[in-house]
Amino acid sequence: MKPHFADLLENSAPYSIFELFKQTRQYSETLIKNLSAEDCQLQSMPDASPVKWHLAHTSWFFEIFLLIPHLPDYKIFNAHFQVLFNSYYNGIGKQFARSLRGLLAKPCLQEILSYRHHVDNHIEDLHSHFAEIPLHISEILMLGIHHEKQHQELLLMDIKHAFSLNPMGPIYSSTLKNAPRNNTASPLEWIDFETGIFEMGAKDTGFSFDNERPRHDQLIQSFRLASRLVTNKEYLAFIDDQGYENPQYWLSDGWSNIKQNDRNAPLYWIKKDDSWYEFTLAGPEPLDLNKPVCHVNYYEANAFAAWARKRLPTEVEWEYASQSENIFGNSGAPEHLHPQAAQGDGLLQMTTEVWQWTGSAYMPYLGFKPFTDVAGEYNGKFMVNQIVLRGGSCLTPSQHLRSSYRNFYYPHQSWMMSGIRLVEDDYACRN
Amino acid sequence: MKPHFADLLENSAPYSIFELFKQTRQYSETLIKNLSAEDCQLQSMPDASPVKWHLAHTSWFFEIFLLIPHLPDYKIFNAHFQVLFNSYYNGIGKQFARSLRGLLAKPCLQEILSYRHHVDNHIEDLHSHFAEIPLHISEILMLGIHHEKQHQELLLMDIKHAFSLNPMGPIYSSTLKNAPRNNTASPLEWIDFETGIFEMGAKDTGFSFDNERPRHDQLIQSFRLASRLVTNKEYLAFIDDQGYENPQYWLSDGWSNIKQNDRNAPLYWIKKDDSWYEFTLAGPEPLDLNKPVCHVNYYEANAFAAWARKRLPTEVEWEYASQSENIFGNSGAPEHLHPQAAQGDGLLQMTTEVWQWTGSAYMPYLGFKPFTDVAGEYNGKFMVNQIVLRGGSCLTPSQHLRSSYRNFYYPHQSWMMSGIRLVEDDYACRN
Amino acid sequence: MKPHFADLLENSAPYSIFELFKQTRQYSETLIKNLSAEDCQLQSMPDASPVKWHLAHTSWFFEIFLLIPHLPDYKIFNAHFQVLFNSYYNGIGKQFARSLRGLLAKPCLQEILSYRHHVDNHIEDLHSHFAEIPLHISEILMLGIHHEKQHQELLLMDIKHAFSLNPMGPIYSSTLKNAPRNNTASPLEWIDFETGIFEMGAKDTGFSFDNERPRHDQLIQSFRLASRLVTNKEYLAFIDDQGYENPQYWLSDGWSNIKQNDRNAPLYWIKKDDSWYEFTLAGPEPLDLNKPVCHVNYYEANAFAAWARKRLPTEVEWEYASQSENIFGNSGAPEHLHPQAAQGDGLLQMTTEVWQWTGSAYMPYLGFKPFTDVAGEYNGKFMVNQIVLRGGSCLTPSQHLRSSYRNFYYPHQSWMMSGIRLVEDDYACRN
Amino acid sequence: MKPHFADLLENSAPYSIFELFKQTRQYSETLIKNLSAEDCQLQSMPDASPVKWHLAHTSWFFEIFLLIPHLPDYKIFNAHFQVLFNSYYNGIGKQFARSLRGLLAKPCLQEILSYRHHVDNHIEDLHSHFAEIPLHISEILMLGIHHEKQHQELLLMDIKHAFSLNPMGPIYSSTLKNAPRNNTASPLEWIDFETGIFEMGAKDTGFSFDNERPRHDQLIQSFRLASRLVTNKEYLAFIDDQGYENPQYWLSDGWSNIKQNDRNAPLYWIKKDDSWYEFTLAGPEPLDLNKPVCHVNYYEANAFAAWARKRLPTEVEWEYASQSENIFGNSGAPEHLHPQAAQGDGLLQMTTEVWQWTGSAYMPYLGFKPFTDVAGEYNGKFMVNQIVLRGGSCLTPSQHLRSSYRNFYYPHQSWMMSGIRLVEDDYACRN
Repeated sequence: MKPHFADLLENSAPYSIFELFKQTRQYSETLIKNLSAEDCQLQSMPDASPVKWHLAHTSWFFEIFLLIPHLPDYKIFNAHFQVLFNSYYNGIGKQFARSLRGLLAKPCLQEILSYRHHVDNHIEDLHSHFAEIPLHISEILMLGIHHEKQHQELLLMDIKHAFSLNPMGPIYSSTLKNAPRNNTASPLEWIDFETGIFEMGAKDTGFSFDNERPRHDQLIQSFRLASRLVTNKEYLAFIDDQGYENPQYWLSDGWSNIKQNDRNAPLYWIKKDDSWYEFTLAGPEPLDLNKPVCHVNYYEANAFAAWARKRLPTEVEWEYASQSENIFGNSGAPEHLHPQAAQGDGLLQMTTEVWQWTGSAYMPYLGFKPFTDVAGEYNGKFMVNQIVLRGGSCLTPSQHLRSSYRNFYYPHQSWMMSGIRLVEDDYACRN
Repeated sequence: MKPHFADLLENSAPYSIFELFKQTRQYSETLIKNLSAEDCQLQSMPDASPVKWHLAHTSWFFEIFLLIPHLPDYKIFNAHFQVLFNSYYNGIGKQFARSLRGLLAKPCLQEILSYRHHVDNHIEDLHSHFAEIPLHISEILMLGIHHEKQHQELLLMDIKHAFSLNPMGPIYSSTLKNAPRNNTASPLEWIDFETGIFEMGAKDTGFSFDNERPRHDQLIQSFRLASRLVTNKEYLAFIDDQGYENPQYWLSDGWSNIKQNDRNAPLYWIKKDDSWYEFTLAGPEPLDLNKPVCHVNYYEANAFAAWARKRLPTEVEWEYASQSENIFGNSGAPEHLHPQAAQGDGLLQMTTEVWQWTGSAYMPYLGFKPFTDVAGEYNGKFMVNQIVLRGGSCLTPSQHLRSSYRNFYYPHQSWMMSGIRLVEDDYACRN
Repeated sequence: MKPHFADLLENSAPYSIFELFKQTRQYSETLIKNLSAEDCQLQSMPDASPVKWHLAHTSWFFEIFLLIPHLPDYKIFNAHFQVLFNSYYNGIGKQFARSLRGLLAKPCLQEILSYRHHVDNHIEDLHSHFAEIPLHISEILMLGIHHEKQHQELLLMDIKHAFSLNPMGPIYSSTLKNAPRNNTASPLEWIDFETGIFEMGAKDTGFSFDNERPRHDQLIQSFRLASRLVTNKEYLAFIDDQGYENPQYWLSDGWSNIKQNDRNAPLYWIKKDDSWYEFTLAGPEPLDLNKPVCHVNYYEANAFAAWARKRLPTEVEWEYASQSENIFGNSGAPEHLHPQAAQGDGLLQMTTEVWQWTGSAYMPYLGFKPFTDVAGEYNGKFMVNQIVLRGGSCLTPSQHLRSSYRNFYYPHQSWMMSGIRLVEDDYACRN
Repeated sequence: MKPHFADLLENSAPYSIFELFKQTRQYSETLIKNLSAEDCQLQSMPDASPVKWHLAHTSWFFEIFLLIPHLPDYKIFNAHFQVLFNSYYNGIGKQFARSLRGLLAKPCLQEILSYRHHVDNHIEDLHSHFAEIPLHISEILMLGIHHEKQHQELLLMDIKHAFSLNPMGPIYSSTLKNAPRNNTASPLEWIDFETGIFEMGAKDTGFSFDNERPRHDQLIQSFRLASRLVTNKEYLAFIDDQGYENPQYWLSDGWSNIKQNDRNAPLYWIKKDDSWYEFTLAGPEPLDLNKPVCHVNYYEANAFAAWARKRLPTEVEWEYASQSENIFGNSGAPEHLHPQAAQGDGLLQMTTEVWQWTGSAYMPYLGFKPFTDVAGEYNGKFMVNQIVLRGGSCLTPSQHLRSSYRNFYYPHQSWMMSGIRLVEDDYACRN
């Protein structure tokens, strides 16, 4: 089915959609202003892509789904790019092997920036071409904008991973390095939520992805949600209590996973001379105990919860809780490219610091229909073997989140900004 | 938590629990009456175990969880067996590597049978020892019985897999080979189920596994369930329509999976001189088009449903439907060691032929508590990366099934008796 | 080319070739007299084969290369066996996958023994059929006999490997277990060999494999060869001197190999409570320091030599030295199924205890021609990536060795009876 | 032992060693003049290294082995580089993981060029520091120069491999693209060489690597060597004769290798619309049938020879033949970055087009002693599992070759300039 938005800009007022497009496109280029062409070339694992590939692929998306079908007389920039920058759309045609993206020195960064500007200019042409933009075109445009916002977060995740492997400790952002820190974290509170029926999923108005729909009723049983995220201090207590040596806390696949990978701490944690450090976008930093734990995989989140005699929230519970107040939006400020400690009262850090692992597998809602014609492979074909994360992170670009937003990763992955929020109830512990 | 059964034998009347024990133990030995010691030695893949290992492990379960802790002065049969026949219980101690089970020529089959009888005799002693069996002991005994019933089905799956790799085409059961066939299958009907709230999960009375609990309310949206399983004829139409060459039907992980494994039909299907055969417990047989398709993995089940513009039922829907009539029980007859064609009217083949892939990931119910003390690792630690199958199969031993029974396998697996039942609704197709 | 023997029995007098055949065939069955059908089923790694497979394959060799082409009206025993027991002869046809040999419960051991006797009886028929056996037939018969002798050693190597993985410590030979030991080993002497030219390779008379030919001249530079093998005591000194932690002694591929496999001692050595044991055909035994070290791979042999500031002999040197006295023959006695300590004077343990790694890659001699028609794939196609071992072992059957005999294995392998003999010269050390 | 050169410059007159140093260093930078920083970042497989890594590592070699130990008050450029640009010298310390070299965006290319110039300047200082350069210093300097020459060829091999994976078909050299071609190749002649004894290995005068020594006598049997290399036309006849489908031509490991990799032509050959192309440093080009075949692995070279009923020369034979005339030296001209067709009479293409696989495993000569103190790990630790190639290629820099030069690669490798020269004799065919 096609996205159907009564008001595509509900999430993005007061901008027009073309202003939002322009702003989004510019933000992508802002993200690379401290990166060299060599930095933009790096692909440190098959899950990640080079920065320059993100810049090209997001442009490809507009070219393939918007300019080629809808702008009369549009000429493609380079025929090779149809294959090179197709991520996974079998419906469009062949794809260059994902794991080899880092080997594309050509087209060079400069040519990719030209490609971006070529696409930008023709979107302007499209704007001029229509007296009034038809709904089916503005829908695709909006999808392309949110697609690019997703890749902005991926771009930061991927460059962080690549830099983390370099013994020289590269710094992505010196603004972040010099940002002030909080010396405390708000105490943990348990917030009660009552039994009931609530409407889950995206509303018909405003943009949403196909996987958030259809809106439908859900039964809720009462639960108590943590007011803030699990901190590094709390996670360290799990490590110090031999959490990684004790199979009773771990799912069977998780135990195999950490043993096979000799894993004994979150990704990016480094122990040196008996002190803990973590690699950040400001390079290696001493571990800040007040900050939320980040870069844990699902197995670790689950094991931590079992050790703490709590559990992870379901995505139903998380969405229910998130509707309780106006919590959406994160700063996107450059000094906030790493999670910060919880400050204040109430339900904190829902969308601003790290994505939160839920206890829900990523499966379609009953009645799910993928986007048609355009991007039918966008979400649906990934609905197996992955786990839902909810919330948002300090790397998520502004104007991108909703209460119904479903993020998803494989349980072994942890290079995204993934953390933990707990639920307490009578039966939460595994033993 | 401990299993708490008001009446442990609800599912098993009119037997006493010790009669059920004896009957179950004997049935395991019946299953090997046509097998040689060499046959019982085979381990054809890490997922499978040798027949003799199943015979020993089920005895180990009673020894470890019942005789050692509860029978005064019990002497263990052989200290090596504590490690050799521990499947995955980290709480008990070390385990012999799963993938090497086929290398244990010693203890020989004869010694394993002695071990079985040693355990059987001491369960008799336990019976005599107590005037009245304490509840916590009968609970473990019942768990051990159902554990052995699970392994009876595994034993048949595993020997089938091992035999399938032998070009000589070994026959497990000549009774099956000579069994009569039906020449037709009942036509497919769509049975309506209405919106509502129903109680899902195991009741407090009678035996159940921890993963079926707690019983809880579920919202149901109306749906239409297929009256019978998908047949080989219907699945063949999918193959003949290039189903395995068309990525649009497949989940992304599924597409990778079939391409990496050059898979183009269910496990055990063999094409020879343009005709299809399938390997069965009666050796290779011409494919019977009226019989239900079997040995498909989740990706295949899902792709078939997408191609048919239908979908798989959720486990909630399946359980709801299964309560509509008294459908539990299968024959367990030796001539029925392969699925049979649907005969008759109404909701057919729910538990008698093949397990049915659902569209539900295997995750804990809210409020799930694993068994304590005894077998806490029984089910809970597998609650990730797997998919629920519901129903039962022609290999499932009698007195083992319930409407709330949750079976589970990884989506790529297909050596179990796994088939497909469809749901029809307005939105079922992926594109 | 065909083997051309002026006197096929030179190595085997005073037996007639049919007597040698009978004796060899019987010895194979003697080797399994303490093994159960389950033992004979074991395949513990792809490099190894089940005992029963060896019994069948050696019979297949006679059937394929002798009975089918040369015995009129011969009827094959079972058509499946042509594929099942073909090891690697592409010229003959398809082969059952090597790594799955352990999955052939059928044919059962009893049927394989019947196959053996069927073949034996028809070799008798062949004997009767000809007034005088034509040379080309006796050549193949002799090849088949020596082929079977090779498999007799493999059979013992393979069952030893399989038993070593069983925590119960199975004993293949209680005769060996009860055999007396020597409490001392002869002191190490260095024996001088002078510069010269000598004829290397098999003579035209008597049986030899194609890879030992043609006989040709070789230049020899003077060298000093160790009078006996390296002992466990000497090898232990290397271990205790951190030999496995110091890359300077190791070839680069060797260093990777031991690090990837966490190897820190020869195969079958086990450290328990600060004492060393080794697994033998008599089960686990305390390490005997006087005995020759065994089950080292080439990397270990080479590293030991570097540490000792010596080197391994080339195969040219070894063959030259071996011609100096009449050293061929080993007991084959059941109490000698494990290497024994050196006793006496002179050049010791050349062929009786363990094969000796040379510093020579396994490549064809100039002028090498493989056997034709019959077994052209016997040796030639393996002439890359392997290293020559010379000598013979306590598991080598009698009447099988020659000074020119070339054994060969991959440098990482060590489940064969492989040990070390050193050469001393001025330049032997690596640094 | 140390290299001991009576006249270090014998191979390099009329330059002084410092002139040779300067010229060599400059040539490395010439090689990258058409490459971007992004191009220099590429690492397309673990066997290859990024161009920038080669530039840095060759500088590191001079810094570690010359400047740090021998230039008073030398200050290292960057402490990280000791680890980052150490290739495999365990004696020096830790190494950055080889397979991750492509992830070092920092140091950027510009910084690596600064490093080069820093090193160059300090070699000047070293020059000034000594009135007369001590022999042990000039020896290391000469080793460093030849080390860099080796990396110049590697650099070209590696960028060729990286470019070959890019569907856009990048061109390294447009000079090469525009170079004229020969339309014919000289006919194949067989040149006779007589039986005898000759001195093999490097002389004491002039530079040589440790693996070419000591000079020693070798017996030669008469043989007939091909006057030129095997051409693409001849190799294509092998392909067209089903050479890749017929196991009889292949070594067993070779057959596995080509089947596992679906290989059916040399590396870089591409079939498109029934025509053959090959990827070159001038991008994809139609296959030129007159040119020598290149980028075959040892298995292919050996199989081709078996099909042709010839064989590969031993390294002894090759060196013997190479001494027959003054054949050393290749042009190094930019229009000659791809092999050219044979022109003229006599023994052709010995060192100018492609390296030639020999039938000799890479093992130490008797009496081999590795370099001491400085670069003891240079050659010796690779003396297993590899095959010797002799000659030189069109990518080999000038003033680098000798008759005794031993190149070596694993039998499965083919990204180097590897081709085939045949020997004819009576017994050359495998069957």
